[in-house]
Amino acid sequence: MAIQFELLGQDSRTRARRGRLTTPHGVIETPVFMPVGTQATVKTLSPEELKEMETTILLSNTYHLFLRPGHDIVREAGGLHSFMNWDRSILTDSGGFQVFSLSALRKITEEGVTFRSHISGEKLFLSPEKAIEIENALGADIIMAFDECAPYPADRDYLKQSLERTSRWAKRCLAAHARPHEQALFGIVQGGVERDLRKQSADELLELDFPGYAVGGLAVGEPKPVMYEVLDYTLAWLPQGRPRYLMGVGSPDDLFEGVERGVDMFDCVLPTRIARNGTVMTSHGKLVIRNALYSRDWEKLDPECDCYTCRNYSRAYIRHLLKADEIFGLRLTSIHNVYFLVQMMKRMRAAIEQNRFLEYKREFYDKYGYGQLS
Amino acid sequence: MAIQFELLGQDSRTRARRGRLTTPHGVIETPVFMPVGTQATVKTLSPEELKEMETTILLSNTYHLFLRPGHDIVREAGGLHSFMNWDRSILTDSGGFQVFSLSALRKITEEGVTFRSHISGEKLFLSPEKAIEIENALGADIIMAFDECAPYPADRDYLKQSLERTSRWAKRCLAAHARPHEQALFGIVQGGVERDLRKQSADELLELDFPGYAVGGLAVGEPKPVMYEVLDYTLAWLPQGRPRYLMGVGSPDDLFEGVERGVDMFDCVLPTRIARNGTVMTSHGKLVIRNALYSRDWEKLDPECDCYTCRNYSRAYIRHLLKADEIFGLRLTSIHNVYFLVQMMKRMRAAIEQNRFLEYKREFYDKYGYGQLS
Repeated sequence: MAIQFELLGQDSRTRARRGRLTTPHGVIETPVFMPVGTQATVKTLSPEELKEMETTILLSNTYHLFLRPGHDIVREAGGLHSFMNWDRSILTDSGGFQVFSLSALRKITEEGVTFRSHISGEKLFLSPEKAIEIENALGADIIMAFDECAPYPADRDYLKQSLERTSRWAKRCLAAHARPHEQALFGIVQGGVERDLRKQSADELLELDFPGYAVGGLAVGEPKPVMYEVLDYTLAWLPQGRPRYLMGVGSPDDLFEGVERGVDMFDCVLPTRIARNGTVMTSHGKLVIRNALYSRDWEKLDPECDCYTCRNYSRAYIRHLLKADEIFGLRLTSIHNVYFLVQMMKRMRAAIEQNRFLEYKREFYDKYGYGQLS
Repeated sequence: MAIQFELLGQDSRTRARRGRLTTPHGVIETPVFMPVGTQATVKTLSPEELKEMETTILLSNTYHLFLRPGHDIVREAGGLHSFMNWDRSILTDSGGFQVFSLSALRKITEEGVTFRSHISGEKLFLSPEKAIEIENALGADIIMAFDECAPYPADRDYLKQSLERTSRWAKRCLAAHARPHEQALFGIVQGGVERDLRKQSADELLELDFPGYAVGGLAVGEPKPVMYEVLDYTLAWLPQGRPRYLMGVGSPDDLFEGVERGVDMFDCVLPTRIARNGTVMTSHGKLVIRNALYSRDWEKLDPECDCYTCRNYSRAYIRHLLKADEIFGLRLTSIHNVYFLVQMMKRMRAAIEQNRFLEYKREFYDKYGYGQLS
């Protein structure tokens, strides 16, 4: 097995779990937030900066790397770790989500998906076999099965067809996987917001015995209470001893609600994307740092933060950099936001260990402000 | 006196000098190249990265900081060092050059220059007194007198009027300077490419007894041999015991030719600007790293370089980042190019100490390629 997962403890009043995931590139304490390095780099940040903020695992996108620079080039580099100078763990998605959200003119058949590159317009094809071939070339520690991520809302008939195809594709991914001892392949449960369809998807995937399971097809437009409800029942069907990954989720409230329901892994572009727009998360809620309000504010972004940015720079300086379109400003806000989520997860882990997850969640929400959580 | 300058040695066959400049923020071995932090940041780089590559002094631009964020804000931060988290030396120019090169609708009178901001269109005014007030607020270790940088070509009558005004302005700068014990004010020799006018300018400024002198009005379009000729005679008139600064110059050949003629200090946006366009300097000449030629090139940018970029990343990875518009790529090329010039100056200093400046210059040119030097 490429990975080991150990359940270290569980909160007594919720389903929050404290775990430890070991991959060929190190130990990941869970629950964990994975920063996203879409194009083999976490936007604006160096590997050293990510390590300084205690990042243990990154996500990178198969679709983007397939299009540019091409997985053959990454393979030639010795894989993604070597290509991007990151010696800790990496997870790659399968490209499924991006094919459905970014590319144009896609056509789905049982064989796979034909689509046009959103960069070159070139006609391309991804199938379970092709996605796994790419992921094998990229060489991440955890790789995802090629799935269809259905939109929200979608009708039941379509959702059922789609999840069944996803199950058949999952089986083909397993068969195509050439490096099972180095890379753990996770299955993805689909089924939209229909309880019986989620159950069917979970059952079909469990039969294939994946070393880990993701919940896909959420955070695609459904109301948050609906997402939480789907997590409530879906996670209950997944095996305790395997890691569970909620894909594409990363706002503070979704991280808390996910952990509370038993999620171990999360990824999202949110912290780096809002950072580049000049929004930072702090223990007292979000700040839009470009605001004139901060032009003479000599405080650090977050009085309770000890990240590189907060140790060295004022709000006024960071505002100046952003107003002046200086890249260093984007670095400073990105460092702060990623650190914020990584540290929040660290505190959640400590709270689970101390059996006070709900108390920590309450303290966090009270200070952060309920209106800003999502 | 805010600074001390010690002449440590001189090459026996050229006028190349080895010196040591001490400011309130540290020791600067000369000849030195100063990276440019126009808007209180060296584009894409952190102070720690600049220190790792042994940068001892930065230049920042008075004109830009006057416009944004405003010198009152920088003063409130405790000065530029504190604002931008840089505890080594800083030099600020006076805004003179930018007023003439960037702003619109400028009108020059004896009192000063009225111009429109290139950002807001706002009507603004800079005079010797105002420029020094701003530079006093910014608090750099070395500050420059407010001068008029005449264009090339310019007629003799205009050049003469202009240098005489610059001399009168220099006197007013000295009178206005409120922090002479903390900030060394340098005078700027003008006079275009006319030998007698340069002599007149140097004489008038020497009478004012500045702790250091710059040669201004060069690298503004005149042929290189003409610039070198002006340096030949102008530097001979400047006092041996004071540092000499050639403003706005930074291509490898100009650095060599300047040092050979006795220049101690240089600044230029060249290394960071070309880096952001994807051009890197190497010991074997320039590479346009976006070129498809490098898509599978696993070498480091420069086989003889040990900068952070070259220690950790391949040409293929850097090319990928630049093609994908990833900011981290701009960081990597900027680090490399600034390091390249800083190390080149370090090697020039060692060569002067060993009395083999011309040999080192020849070795450098032979390897770099004569066609790529400028």
